Amino acid sequence: MKTTNELIKTIKGLKSDLHRKDFLLTWEQSRDELQQVLDIAQVLKCLRGENIVTKVFGSGLGISVFRDNSTRTRFSYASALNLLGLAQQDLDEGKSQIAHGETVRETANMISFCADAIGIRDDMFLGSGNAYMREVGAALDEGFEQGVLPQRPALINLQCDIDHPTQAMADLAWLEEHFGGLDKLKGKKIAMTWAYSPSYGKPLSVPQGIIGLMTRFGMDVTLAHPEGYDLIPEVVEIARKNAKNSGGSFIQVNSMAEAFEGADIVYPKSWAPYKVMEKRTELLRAEDHEGLKALEKECLAQNALHKDWHCDEAMMKKTKGGEALYMHCLPADISGVSCKEGEVAEAVFEKYRIATYKEASWKPYIIAAMILARKFSNPGAVLEQLQKEGEKRIK
Amino acid sequence: MKTTNELIKTIKGLKSDLHRKDFLLTWEQSRDELQQVLDIAQVLKCLRGENIVTKVFGSGLGISVFRDNSTRTRFSYASALNLLGLAQQDLDEGKSQIAHGETVRETANMISFCADAIGIRDDMFLGSGNAYMREVGAALDEGFEQGVLPQRPALINLQCDIDHPTQAMADLAWLEEHFGGLDKLKGKKIAMTWAYSPSYGKPLSVPQGIIGLMTRFGMDVTLAHPEGYDLIPEVVEIARKNAKNSGGSFIQVNSMAEAFEGADIVYPKSWAPYKVMEKRTELLRAEDHEGLKALEKECLAQNALHKDWHCDEAMMKKTKGGEALYMHCLPADISGVSCKEGEVAEAVFEKYRIATYKEASWKPYIIAAMILARKFSNPGAVLEQLQKEGEKRIK
Amino acid sequence: MKTTNELIKTIKGLKSDLHRKDFLLTWEQSRDELQQVLDIAQVLKCLRGENIVTKVFGSGLGISVFRDNSTRTRFSYASALNLLGLAQQDLDEGKSQIAHGETVRETANMISFCADAIGIRDDMFLGSGNAYMREVGAALDEGFEQGVLPQRPALINLQCDIDHPTQAMADLAWLEEHFGGLDKLKGKKIAMTWAYSPSYGKPLSVPQGIIGLMTRFGMDVTLAHPEGYDLIPEVVEIARKNAKNSGGSFIQVNSMAEAFEGADIVYPKSWAPYKVMEKRTELLRAEDHEGLKALEKECLAQNALHKDWHCDEAMMKKTKGGEALYMHCLPADISGVSCKEGEVAEAVFEKYRIATYKEASWKPYIIAAMILARKFSNPGAVLEQLQKEGEKRIK
Repeated sequence: MKTTNELIKTIKGLKSDLHRKDFLLTWEQSRDELQQVLDIAQVLKCLRGENIVTKVFGSGLGISVFRDNSTRTRFSYASALNLLGLAQQDLDEGKSQIAHGETVRETANMISFCADAIGIRDDMFLGSGNAYMREVGAALDEGFEQGVLPQRPALINLQCDIDHPTQAMADLAWLEEHFGGLDKLKGKKIAMTWAYSPSYGKPLSVPQGIIGLMTRFGMDVTLAHPEGYDLIPEVVEIARKNAKNSGGSFIQVNSMAEAFEGADIVYPKSWAPYKVMEKRTELLRAEDHEGLKALEKECLAQNALHKDWHCDEAMMKKTKGGEALYMHCLPADISGVSCKEGEVAEAVFEKYRIATYKEASWKPYIIAAMILARKFSNPGAVLEQLQKEGEKRIK
Repeated sequence: MKTTNELIKTIKGLKSDLHRKDFLLTWEQSRDELQQVLDIAQVLKCLRGENIVTKVFGSGLGISVFRDNSTRTRFSYASALNLLGLAQQDLDEGKSQIAHGETVRETANMISFCADAIGIRDDMFLGSGNAYMREVGAALDEGFEQGVLPQRPALINLQCDIDHPTQAMADLAWLEEHFGGLDKLKGKKIAMTWAYSPSYGKPLSVPQGIIGLMTRFGMDVTLAHPEGYDLIPEVVEIARKNAKNSGGSFIQVNSMAEAFEGADIVYPKSWAPYKVMEKRTELLRAEDHEGLKALEKECLAQNALHKDWHCDEAMMKKTKGGEALYMHCLPADISGVSCKEGEVAEAVFEKYRIATYKEASWKPYIIAAMILARKFSNPGAVLEQLQKEGEKRIK
Repeated sequence: MKTTNELIKTIKGLKSDLHRKDFLLTWEQSRDELQQVLDIAQVLKCLRGENIVTKVFGSGLGISVFRDNSTRTRFSYASALNLLGLAQQDLDEGKSQIAHGETVRETANMISFCADAIGIRDDMFLGSGNAYMREVGAALDEGFEQGVLPQRPALINLQCDIDHPTQAMADLAWLEEHFGGLDKLKGKKIAMTWAYSPSYGKPLSVPQGIIGLMTRFGMDVTLAHPEGYDLIPEVVEIARKNAKNSGGSFIQVNSMAEAFEGADIVYPKSWAPYKVMEKRTELLRAEDHEGLKALEKECLAQNALHKDWHCDEAMMKKTKGGEALYMHCLPADISGVSCKEGEVAEAVFEKYRIATYKEASWKPYIIAAMILARKFSNPGAVLEQLQKEGEKRIK
């Protein structure tokens, strides 16, 4: 791996517009911009490892808006804010359907007088999570231009209906660490596959985020799911184009075994078909509780037909040398542990448990890197200054 | 406007006892004390605008006690704490009727061992919100005198049954900014008028705060509401006396149109008659849910008789040059936007939308100024020191 | 009392392994280790009194996990974190029965990437609170050893089913302050007695914590309760052994009057028999709401037979010179104030009210001391550095 100094030098050389735009979908960012976030994250992690304070803000708030339950992302975001010197403040609006128009514009400004970052998780309503974030972003732009806000807060997508960029980027940082560099990922086969879970309605943002991002780096990405468990077609199309452009490949299969065959990396995870998510969104909007119950029942029965989509030891044997890297955004549904039958066998999970923790450990640094890249036009110089000052984090 | 240096010089010259008393009602403060808070707020806003850290505390907690829902005030208070270097900690006691006696004394001390500020919002119970704050204040005095507390936290009224001093002072700061100085307000006509809203039970603290404060500066204050929608008589009497003393005027009318006639500033906003608030307080205390429902129904029907109290374009035409400054504490009930028929027409609100955001933007600085004035006997010197040190807020 | 410099010198001379283990039960710590925490707490309190910043962390999170309602402990913990420079972040898992196995391991790691302290309150389930903390501790050890966590957070027991070490240690610090030194406690009689309360199910951790700790310092500890209101037998056995080893005594009586006779200190407080707590734990686990109601009814009736266990003025007259120090962890059930008939008469409580506040005021410093002792192998040197730097807390 590169040294901190080498990373800082690289960061300075990358072409990036991230200080002028919000990082809402990975496929809206250039290759250099993605690398900038990865490299900043790596420097922040190194500095912290060397007991150096990474505060770039002497004061300021970081706002969180969680429109869905969250523990991991909440703590990762809080950690990222803390790394940078911001104090966390939660906007608790409940999980009710999001407001629009004047309410969004006004609230966005009212919470931002002293805010340098706003992180939003909004993944429940297909078609509106990412759109809501853009509405908030536009309100912040207006507030800043009109002199209402003394600064334009960084807007962080903590999971939407389309993408989960902090997760996908943390996963990529982990792959970079594990395989020893971004260039080492070229030609590696990653299997993003559906897996059985005894719950329904798991968001699409993780599989979509993975196929949308991993296809940028020349990887051979295989998407596998039972027939009918489709992701949003537009995102699949983006993955296809990405693969072409990066010199990798993107294929779709309807068999977990086929996807695992010779894979370097496997990512077995449950999700709901996007058609179901559409229907669910309509029912949620209509507050049709009976309809929601019926849909859940129907989907669970449907899921139960595919219990063989299970990442067990036999399945793992099909991977390259039987030793593919298992990934998961956590928490996984572990058969015999967190549920009777789930996404992964206990023995497989246990073998890769620490690896999944390390995968997750990148998230605070990725989020912090996104904020830093949004707020500073020359993040390399800022990191260099932190390193030079070398203020001890623990006395 | 004055420069930061001029403001600091002015602050040093003002006679103030604010470091010895809590700022619970604007009319308990001298003219110099009000100006001190305004000037400190302005300096804090300037320093932040110049990217200078305004922390006066190296550590310490700021406690919040919200006995009613709040987003704007909550974030303003959190922002103020952050500006000064305090960490926010919420005391969540629910909205149940407030405790008294030993419970108050004890809780006040238990939460304050490391607290430098306590902000309380308690506006639901007519006759007890402000009284509760004084009870807390007395407990803090005792705790400090007896050596339980190493410091006496600043007590901040974040809205009570009588006054809303952080709102009224932020409104005044905005008027000062908008018109170019406190002295420019002399002779300006401000119309504080009731407006129709499809909700009931909105607190009296804003209109009372406005007539109690704006009458201190030689303004011509007109209070307008339909017959029966009276504010607390004692507060109206205070406004009357204030106007006399400041060389302004205070009149009451029963017509929105009359109030708007030739006004420089209009503040149309719904509230409930104080007699209704008294009745509601009794019912809340008795936990008489049926009674509360009946009262709400009755009041909404009563309100509906006054839908013509609507700030539309025709109404605005009556103001000075048709261009009076529209004010609101937000959120406003905007006809056709946040409700079918409300306080203000969409076109009027849209014209002044950014202005109302700027009005609101003063609140964090006003609250921070109140804390600073309470904790330092020579706030001018402290601000001077911040300016001299000039620590960068964003690296 | 010793000066700050003397205390720092003493701290440096004490033999302590606290930086290598969690402080989960007072009786697992050596006499030197207990003193180290007391002395660090005292230095922190002194430094703060001298307006000196006590931050030893330049950034970092402190996590709180409250599995039971809490105001006092919550604020003490938040204060402790703030004293040391950590930002508080709450993990809200509800009060549901605690998870085990993979869920605990995973969650412990997921919240700790940037955490330097984790405080847990888990006192509802007899037999599992302390065990849960050890499970978390083991997960943190593994995460740190495996390179998942860049640091091992200090684990703080904010009350479990067995002990309440932050309370007991704060109580001890108060006794040390009140009587002028740990050595002055030798031979003092302390009466830890049950008292009537109109509520049931109060945890055993306070009385158990008191008899487990005070027997370490040569005190004459008397435990008194009505027949059947037994504490956990293992803890009573520990107290007995402690007394023997420290040259003090430990006796049990079934009369409040007997316990108060000649006492220097009295600690009258309600609790539920451990057999009841066992039964309650089973019912809570089974979510047997009817059973819980029946148990409560039965216990309240049982309690009501012992209303004479009341700390009134007549009872206080029996103590040494009628002037024993009254202690309570607060809130006390005060007869005629917070309930009709309770643990203590109003006149007695009022006489010692400020004393109980001072007792409580030690808790933030004790918690901070525990974190500091866990994170630094040479806490004396760290405190010395803070003193030397002398950064002003309030400008």
